[in-house]
Amino acid sequence: MADGTTAAPAVVTGGAGAIGSALVRRLLRDGRRVRVLDNFSSGRRDALPSDLPASRLAITACDLGAAEPPADAVRGAAEIWHLAATRDVRRGTLEPGLDLTHGTIATAHLLEQARRCDVRRIVYTSSSVVYGLASVQPTPETYGPLLPQSLYGASKLAGEGLVSAYAHSYGLTARIFRLANIVDGRMDHGILHDLFGKLDADPSQLEVLGDGRQAKSYLRTEDCVEGMLVGAAGGSAPVDVFNLGADDRTSVREIAEKVVAARGGRARVVFTGGERGWAGDIPQQLLSIEKIRRRGWAPSTTSGGAIDRTVAELLARRASPG
Amino acid sequence: MADGTTAAPAVVTGGAGAIGSALVRRLLRDGRRVRVLDNFSSGRRDALPSDLPASRLAITACDLGAAEPPADAVRGAAEIWHLAATRDVRRGTLEPGLDLTHGTIATAHLLEQARRCDVRRIVYTSSSVVYGLASVQPTPETYGPLLPQSLYGASKLAGEGLVSAYAHSYGLTARIFRLANIVDGRMDHGILHDLFGKLDADPSQLEVLGDGRQAKSYLRTEDCVEGMLVGAAGGSAPVDVFNLGADDRTSVREIAEKVVAARGGRARVVFTGGERGWAGDIPQQLLSIEKIRRRGWAPSTTSGGAIDRTVAELLARRASPG
Repeated sequence: MADGTTAAPAVVTGGAGAIGSALVRRLLRDGRRVRVLDNFSSGRRDALPSDLPASRLAITACDLGAAEPPADAVRGAAEIWHLAATRDVRRGTLEPGLDLTHGTIATAHLLEQARRCDVRRIVYTSSSVVYGLASVQPTPETYGPLLPQSLYGASKLAGEGLVSAYAHSYGLTARIFRLANIVDGRMDHGILHDLFGKLDADPSQLEVLGDGRQAKSYLRTEDCVEGMLVGAAGGSAPVDVFNLGADDRTSVREIAEKVVAARGGRARVVFTGGERGWAGDIPQQLLSIEKIRRRGWAPSTTSGGAIDRTVAELLARRASPG
Repeated sequence: MADGTTAAPAVVTGGAGAIGSALVRRLLRDGRRVRVLDNFSSGRRDALPSDLPASRLAITACDLGAAEPPADAVRGAAEIWHLAATRDVRRGTLEPGLDLTHGTIATAHLLEQARRCDVRRIVYTSSSVVYGLASVQPTPETYGPLLPQSLYGASKLAGEGLVSAYAHSYGLTARIFRLANIVDGRMDHGILHDLFGKLDADPSQLEVLGDGRQAKSYLRTEDCVEGMLVGAAGGSAPVDVFNLGADDRTSVREIAEKVVAARGGRARVVFTGGERGWAGDIPQQLLSIEKIRRRGWAPSTTSGGAIDRTVAELLARRASPG
């Protein structure tokens, strides 16, 4: 019992995704048994260990947006980490039903099966975008009203409400994390991935959406996972909400310059203009992380340091792909 | 043009319901053309005028939870008042998919058709229950985090997020109203309706859910409608949120005593006990109404006065039914 491998397993939805797979590896290192649920729309099987017996790591392909997950995959779990979501905020604006199905309805399907299977604990990854254009920065968890700018943000807010209602109505415990921009070199999406790709296509210039002054807080995936473990562990409230981010912001201009420097410094940075990168973009975002800090967690680096570390990883990955 | 009858019509979803039909009558009095959308699950055709041509009042039966409303019913509208929702908070706890379908998904269906038909203005009735158990009372619109206790509350919060996201992503203007408990004598649901029904069944005693100390703010339907008209009219923000309620609270015990007195004073009031009437109930609720008050609106009566007026209407209705 002491090594945790005989304790009830953890379910991780989106467990083959960028953050999910890092969480799964971390839980496995703690000796936990893990069940991954993923629709593999963007998650990858090779992000997960392939050398473990199903008793340690069970992987179920299922689409939470289409139906409730199989009861067998949920029953007996100590807790569910619900990370599955769409990942491209912009795409949700072009396809208005996307986040409703794969965010809100998926969350409802999962919670309903959790209720039926009597799982008592839910951890939910929400997002800083639920705050919309917050007039208070750093933005604390107590900020309101929550007026998301994007349908992705709307689905995250809807998920928070569902998690809270299920917890209060059916006696579950829930922890909600509002994440800043999470980065690492294994991700195949996000601003750094996009900028590297643009330089591949045209090494002479780097086009950046917006005026470059949009500034957000970036956090490393491993810091995010540790923060969730810290925040999920304690407290007696039925539902609690924590921001997870860095203490500072990095502008898009700074990020572009770091990428150009890393790629040899020859490209000219060109801005498309406008204070937002796209409709629904949040141009300025900085979360207050005082609440989770009081629980003993802090990011291992600044926002700029998280970008630097990720740029270095992306360079190393290009030097030796695969 | 001056009388408004040739101006673009208003769409009212849930327009055959208790608040919706009062809003429709008010808009008609202003000379507006009105299109009602209702699934008639609880709305009643006889709540609406029957002597108007379809050019003044068009009624379309449709279920927003099942599909988008017909484009013809939405196209050309100056604005949509989206009031359609489930109305029994308790039922949503027993049937967990109900508020998802008839709240959240219904709202998404409506907004998507509004976007396609290029309707530029949305008014949405949310609820005080989005605040959950608020630690600040009177609760201002800036309160957070929003942790609803019921699936009904979760669906109202989800609706707020969708309205906000559609407004910001597609250039609409939106006004959101978080309503206290709305009462009038025509309603066939709610605490007064329930207590009258219980006394009919057993005139000797009146069973009250909870310990009777639950205290909420009650607002008359006509005040609610005027508040929405005031709040919807002004301001330049893409999205704005207003509480609508009374300045004070009325306890369940007070309400029960008013009902018993109105019915002859012979019944004994019996409490089932516990600080909540049911799982998901919000035992203490008082909204700050300073924001809408600064726009020039105020309730025409206290919370207790709203109860008194409604009890008198219920008595009168029993004296001459129909």
